[in-house]
Amino acid sequence: MRDAYLVGAAQTDFGSFPDESYRSLFRTAFEATRDSVPAGIDPDDVDEAFVGTLGVGGRQLGLSGPAVTEHVGLDGIPCTRVENACAASGFAGRHAVQAVKSGMADVALAGGVEIMTDTSSDATKYWLGVSGETEWERLSGTTFAGVYAQMADAHMEEYGTTSEHLSRVAVKNHGNGAKNPHAHLGFECSLEDAENAPVVADPLTLYHCCPTTDGAACALVVSEDVVDRYTDDPIRIAGVGAASDRVGLFQRESYTSVPASKEAGQQAYEMAGVTPDDIDFAEVHDCFAIAELLAYEDLGFCEPGEAGPLVESGETELGGERPVNTSGGLKSKGHPIGATGAGQLVEAFKQLSGTAGDRQVEGATRGLTHNVGGSGGAAVVHVLERESETEVDA
Amino acid sequence: MRDAYLVGAAQTDFGSFPDESYRSLFRTAFEATRDSVPAGIDPDDVDEAFVGTLGVGGRQLGLSGPAVTEHVGLDGIPCTRVENACAASGFAGRHAVQAVKSGMADVALAGGVEIMTDTSSDATKYWLGVSGETEWERLSGTTFAGVYAQMADAHMEEYGTTSEHLSRVAVKNHGNGAKNPHAHLGFECSLEDAENAPVVADPLTLYHCCPTTDGAACALVVSEDVVDRYTDDPIRIAGVGAASDRVGLFQRESYTSVPASKEAGQQAYEMAGVTPDDIDFAEVHDCFAIAELLAYEDLGFCEPGEAGPLVESGETELGGERPVNTSGGLKSKGHPIGATGAGQLVEAFKQLSGTAGDRQVEGATRGLTHNVGGSGGAAVVHVLERESETEVDA
Repeated sequence: MRDAYLVGAAQTDFGSFPDESYRSLFRTAFEATRDSVPAGIDPDDVDEAFVGTLGVGGRQLGLSGPAVTEHVGLDGIPCTRVENACAASGFAGRHAVQAVKSGMADVALAGGVEIMTDTSSDATKYWLGVSGETEWERLSGTTFAGVYAQMADAHMEEYGTTSEHLSRVAVKNHGNGAKNPHAHLGFECSLEDAENAPVVADPLTLYHCCPTTDGAACALVVSEDVVDRYTDDPIRIAGVGAASDRVGLFQRESYTSVPASKEAGQQAYEMAGVTPDDIDFAEVHDCFAIAELLAYEDLGFCEPGEAGPLVESGETELGGERPVNTSGGLKSKGHPIGATGAGQLVEAFKQLSGTAGDRQVEGATRGLTHNVGGSGGAAVVHVLERESETEVDA
Repeated sequence: MRDAYLVGAAQTDFGSFPDESYRSLFRTAFEATRDSVPAGIDPDDVDEAFVGTLGVGGRQLGLSGPAVTEHVGLDGIPCTRVENACAASGFAGRHAVQAVKSGMADVALAGGVEIMTDTSSDATKYWLGVSGETEWERLSGTTFAGVYAQMADAHMEEYGTTSEHLSRVAVKNHGNGAKNPHAHLGFECSLEDAENAPVVADPLTLYHCCPTTDGAACALVVSEDVVDRYTDDPIRIAGVGAASDRVGLFQRESYTSVPASKEAGQQAYEMAGVTPDDIDFAEVHDCFAIAELLAYEDLGFCEPGEAGPLVESGETELGGERPVNTSGGLKSKGHPIGATGAGQLVEAFKQLSGTAGDRQVEGATRGLTHNVGGSGGAAVVHVLERESETEVDA
């Protein structure tokens, strides 16, 4: 089982781009990714591609993978569209690792793209209304905000988590996003802003919800046999884990935990031979503020019920012991469904290569990315570590 | 790089099933697949699943992989939806092989499911109208039949291929499908039926086009380390190949060849260490009759331009030198988009395990499956071989 390495990763600006197509966005992300490889890379070196997108609604319905890779000059290579809702390109990343470990590829691209702000066609409007589960959730009128609101409610009831805890997630992530030039909502927000914002789905206010976003992101995964061609400072994908679960929240035993996240995290820690304490920073799936709190608990950053106090303590802030969502997270950086998982790998790459600018985590050696599909029907976790012992410039 | 084996594969009836859901169809296919494993299999042994489906339109929009695996008791395992249009579950099969070869799974499920005959929602109607490429083909009114008609036209013009050659594909495949109890259109047709049928897209008549179909199919891929648990008569997945191409036909250099098929075939032959001459039987992607003729040429069963004479010679008939589409193919067995590639693996499994009944190819030792997405934007080929030297019962 060969080792896999992340040698480059980059994204477009995340935002609302009525003049862009999914092809043009993917191209921008791919070209920036190519340029992010320390020793450069010839696109002809890419053996295989995985493209994450939910991508319906007025756009390419089938074959949306090859439709974007052909546009960036990756003609002819095996290309597969991967879709696990909001975890699409997190899974694309994992399958790039599998392709490399299988010996069938030396260089695999994992990318993602989504256009969400164009609601001009009926199909898009329809699509934006989907929830995690069709038969019993969507057709009963439940939205994603509604599903996560139920999880927030249950966490408040069971552990005494407060609206202020949720708002602190928003304040932290907007603070980080304000330092990220690619962020969709790159402005700061105050605790009062978050607390006093209109309610979307009680108890979640507008600031407890991520935006709908356009954007693309890519990551390049290579085998141990070729990594030296591309970098002197290798970042190893030390662990990957993935799991699925009942798609409908109503079918799960608990509303205060996401078992797929827990399982994916445990697999990734085990493969990497590390524990949660060894993680210096993390990008977690904060589609709603409660999701970040659940992630703290499911990934072992704190005990069940302790996520509210943890965010309050400042430990997960930039400058804290283990910063979470230094990119701004889905909340502030934005959440272009299919691009989100690859976007998390972009931030991990930046942190571990010392190129995160004002958001740089000092001495970042090992990071984690955590990407969830639906309300927890699928989850994927990567543990990445910098092999060189030279300190990154902070 | 560990070897991968096919230890079980089965499908639902293919047809029009207004009372079935994608979940119920998948369950039928999964349970039959479990039962097809010679020594049986515990569902808990399954480490990972890949589900191919285009699956939009009134049904589960995202997370359709976990939505079907949860319904068959495969809770918790990593499950990824794979979509490459009509090649969705052919690619699912390839990724199951990658997962096994990577060492990350010992038992991987590759399945596919589609419901195409329900056109009750606007989204489904919209979806059924899609062609390979959105911007320049679909939005100009081009359908898949139209795209393949252009390929047929070009082949006739360049090589003198005739309508009768196309009709002979239909006659052969309906003859085979009439022997397949799972076939959607399991009846024979005569040359006159095919020739005199209404024109769908000139020069293609109704009998030159496959039906739209509901159905599901699954295949179980295992590593060399565990294969002995499941069978005494192992079928090795000796070669896999895949490629992509320009999604729009108008962007390709030739209309008389599908380069992605050629490339995928060459990769698979090379990995298996065989040549086209070593293939005893093949399931090829005959969404339209011309597609089967192109496959003969692209897969090296004959020289370019010789496919018409080849089908006329009877070599690809049951009882001929190298039977093609013994299952009935997409034409007669049916073409439930996401289930088609896995359905091809089902026929290969039956042939190589000597369970193909009236369609059994005598002495079948090595078979090939060939699954195309769109009009050639993606293609995937598997070469499978029976390791035991004992003759299968014919």
